[in-house]
Amino acid sequence: MNLNMVCLDLEGTLAPELWVELARATGIKELERTTRDEPDFGKLMRYRMDILQHNKLTMDEIQSVLRQVEPMDGAKEFLDEVRSLSQTIFVSDTFEQFAKPVMEKLGMPIIFCNRFKVDDQGYISDYRIRCTPSKPVTVMALRACGFETIAAGDSYNDLGMIRLSKAGWLFRSTEAIKAENPDIPALETYEDLLAGIKDAL
Amino acid sequence: MNLNMVCLDLEGTLAPELWVELARATGIKELERTTRDEPDFGKLMRYRMDILQHNKLTMDEIQSVLRQVEPMDGAKEFLDEVRSLSQTIFVSDTFEQFAKPVMEKLGMPIIFCNRFKVDDQGYISDYRIRCTPSKPVTVMALRACGFETIAAGDSYNDLGMIRLSKAGWLFRSTEAIKAENPDIPALETYEDLLAGIKDAL
Repeated sequence: MNLNMVCLDLEGTLAPELWVELARATGIKELERTTRDEPDFGKLMRYRMDILQHNKLTMDEIQSVLRQVEPMDGAKEFLDEVRSLSQTIFVSDTFEQFAKPVMEKLGMPIIFCNRFKVDDQGYISDYRIRCTPSKPVTVMALRACGFETIAAGDSYNDLGMIRLSKAGWLFRSTEAIKAENPDIPALETYEDLLAGIKDAL
Repeated sequence: MNLNMVCLDLEGTLAPELWVELARATGIKELERTTRDEPDFGKLMRYRMDILQHNKLTMDEIQSVLRQVEPMDGAKEFLDEVRSLSQTIFVSDTFEQFAKPVMEKLGMPIIFCNRFKVDDQGYISDYRIRCTPSKPVTVMALRACGFETIAAGDSYNDLGMIRLSKAGWLFRSTEAIKAENPDIPALETYEDLLAGIKDAL
């Protein structure tokens, strides 16, 4: 009779990387730049907003493009089953407006993430980060109001959330992250992740 | 560009009172007993569990009965629109298994509430309260991970959540509660509540 909250990463876990998809679909190579190329997140975001405005891409147009992005194969069925078993949230470092089209395809689950400010012309002009470090702080807040968390994600920013949870997995992560974190079990299929979650509930 | 979380009460606000509906549908008058009759919540819950077991009502059977409960008129349409505008949660003192049938009818929104323990025979044998006082603690946890809350509810246990939020309303409350809390605006229709929420976002 635990009060569980399943905390899922979005990009790389149930959906593809949204900036990468946007770069691919629009053909704007500059949008492929990530924190690996520019470790200063503020600088990277300013660069991205400038590129979008330079290419006259408004939020409406970005959302039209992102409406073409599909959840990973089997992700919707996996999520439907998890939501039938436990309260479930996405905890992500994406932005609410970017995630919305794929959230609609996933059946409107809730997402705890960041948010863009859009100016009167419809361009992204600023952004608001929800909290830092976002995933561990979110898990601690969920614990503070009575939940035990169960978590999965693919990347460095998921490690804290996974380690603070009563059960957690790296999911479709890189060989480097798996090698550096041998204490965290690594899974590759939704079938195995669902079995793990069922076991932890 | 605020990071908003709309926090809605369930029973009395978007759905009828589930214990009352269960009493009505099963004809078990004893289940109409509430905290107004027995202020000791632990005693009331023990009484309710005994009545359910005495009447041989398992959780499966209870959920079958509760599947007949419909959201209030217009509640689903209201909720769909709120969810399209903002991340939204139910914050309720009901139990996850009781709420599930009506959550399915409402499009599987998330609910932060309590949970029953079900024994091997399928009977409710115990329960777990998520946190106390549940609604104010939940709002504080949401604030701790970066959200500004907007809240609505009909009853005494909603007052703290409403007062801790940047905007909030009593919704379809009693004359007594409205009279005792003149600082909180009181609304009666989903149209007005939606307008208020849009204004606060």
